[in-house]
Amino acid sequence: MSCLPNVLLIGAGGVGAVVAYSIDYNNLSQLSIVVGRDYEKVKDAGYEINSVDHGTVHGWKPAHIYPNINAAAAANDPYDFVVVTTKNLPDIQKVEDLIEPVVTKEITTVVLIQNGFDLGRPIIAKYPENVCLSGVTFIGSHNYGGVIKQTQHEVTQISYFPNSHLSKEVQESKAKEFVKLYSTDKNSVTYSEDSKFSRYRKLVYNGTLNTICTLVGTDTGRVELSGGNESIVIPAMKEIIAVAKADGVILPPTTINDMLHDDDGDYFTPSMTVDSRKGNPLELEVILGNLLKVAGEVGVETPVLSVIYSLLRIVQFRLKEQAGYITVPKERPIDKSKVWE
Amino acid sequence: MSCLPNVLLIGAGGVGAVVAYSIDYNNLSQLSIVVGRDYEKVKDAGYEINSVDHGTVHGWKPAHIYPNINAAAAANDPYDFVVVTTKNLPDIQKVEDLIEPVVTKEITTVVLIQNGFDLGRPIIAKYPENVCLSGVTFIGSHNYGGVIKQTQHEVTQISYFPNSHLSKEVQESKAKEFVKLYSTDKNSVTYSEDSKFSRYRKLVYNGTLNTICTLVGTDTGRVELSGGNESIVIPAMKEIIAVAKADGVILPPTTINDMLHDDDGDYFTPSMTVDSRKGNPLELEVILGNLLKVAGEVGVETPVLSVIYSLLRIVQFRLKEQAGYITVPKERPIDKSKVWE
Repeated sequence: MSCLPNVLLIGAGGVGAVVAYSIDYNNLSQLSIVVGRDYEKVKDAGYEINSVDHGTVHGWKPAHIYPNINAAAAANDPYDFVVVTTKNLPDIQKVEDLIEPVVTKEITTVVLIQNGFDLGRPIIAKYPENVCLSGVTFIGSHNYGGVIKQTQHEVTQISYFPNSHLSKEVQESKAKEFVKLYSTDKNSVTYSEDSKFSRYRKLVYNGTLNTICTLVGTDTGRVELSGGNESIVIPAMKEIIAVAKADGVILPPTTINDMLHDDDGDYFTPSMTVDSRKGNPLELEVILGNLLKVAGEVGVETPVLSVIYSLLRIVQFRLKEQAGYITVPKERPIDKSKVWE
Repeated sequence: MSCLPNVLLIGAGGVGAVVAYSIDYNNLSQLSIVVGRDYEKVKDAGYEINSVDHGTVHGWKPAHIYPNINAAAAANDPYDFVVVTTKNLPDIQKVEDLIEPVVTKEITTVVLIQNGFDLGRPIIAKYPENVCLSGVTFIGSHNYGGVIKQTQHEVTQISYFPNSHLSKEVQESKAKEFVKLYSTDKNSVTYSEDSKFSRYRKLVYNGTLNTICTLVGTDTGRVELSGGNESIVIPAMKEIIAVAKADGVILPPTTINDMLHDDDGDYFTPSMTVDSRKGNPLELEVILGNLLKVAGEVGVETPVLSVIYSLLRIVQFRLKEQAGYITVPKERPIDKSKVWE
């Protein structure tokens, strides 16, 4: 009989596999994972992890590996924590619907370790009696078919998305309990008072270097070497800092410098750029779409980010077509009567 | 003994081969061409041209085919017209230096059938006693290793770049003489009073659809279908029209509509996007760089175009590296003391 909390991690890709390994390494929970595309391989051979934090790990497997969420729901006690490390693509699959089979009312704490901004709202709306935690991670890790390459130290901030149906104490204690399960001597996992602060802070990187690298098709090192930090990255970062300020979050003056040194020594290709190269849809709506909505609400101009967003919307259209989510007519439609102005 | 004017065309690629074919088809000149990469193939087998204007043409060759400009300079009488249809890449090869061996003082008229803006200035500075003509062409033609696919009707406006050392009459008469050599019953080649007008007009397409397709990696049809015309193409076009106006050129109110119907029925991939996919450097400086210089001089704000330009500068860096014009350090340099702000 297991007296450890049951943890289910959904989406054990580049980031998720490292998070899962850290949780398992800690031995304070009973860990199950849901693996999508690489299920057959991982089920047999486990993961190979090449990590700046853990060195080379061969054949790692957690207690349970499931090919999908229904299998994970059928096989176990209620989950105390459901950790979601999938891409967040509300235009394709809503997280709140995805996790429905594994969320037990009042019991399960949902942990979103995902890129993006304002992610908690739909979860809390659907599960008002469950705590929803926020995990903001800097990790620099990619999945090459079950082979994980982690090139940056795992730094994660855990907080909660405030849920007015629950007390501050309950939410804070769940967040701290999860930090205990997840924090090891190899990573840096800390509790943070304010999820909004760490979301905005990470957005200074993800809304700029991540999106810009995707459009120009290169890594953060070449963006720097070409003069791109001065010409476009920093102006875009300043817009995010201005939105945060108008939204009540003061980011420290060193934020820009910190973010631009984040990949020091590494010709790093950010996650959105990797997605684009693989032909996968982009986390555009939760990264830039949600931010620009807030910018409009608080009345901050975002001339650089708005152009980047408009360009990436076209990229997203192309990627959705490539991935089969939409189709375009075989012959380009002609509408001579349409007047563009 | 030839009593026809000697015409040399440099750069017989997608656009150049169709221009050359039209000039040759007219039989009013003795045509030589310089062919770069496809020389061996074209010298033996000629061009295959699949054209909306000419149908399918097999094995077409002009009077002379040369592998380089020095061979063209050595082999012939002075050239009456040197037609340049290469890419215009001043950051890699200046046109005024390239054509030096084939320009005869006072005799040779230089014709630039190239994308871009403000192209005549360096030619006139170096060859003040020669006429320099401007050719603005809409043609929709690409070269696949000696096989030319022309999907749009050839429409070209010829004018002159004003040269204060020469009379208006001389320049205008050379322009009209060239129109006679080049205009056929298959194409639409006309003399235009004002090269600046047609350059600005074409820039409304090339500064926007051409650049945007390059960044988002798709064609003008998918830009339209994804909503990109409204979100970014038209705002960018309006900036170009505003710069033109401040620079004394009034583009007609239908320009935006005309440009956006230009590729009707065709999922058209513009030239810069094709260059980018082939790994070739972009005509960024003559298309957007020169325009933004003028915008600064006339005091017009260009928030959309400036972002597009900054992004494409990074793309150009990547493409120059790919093509071997620049190298980056194997390990990304770390400068911890650098403070970004």
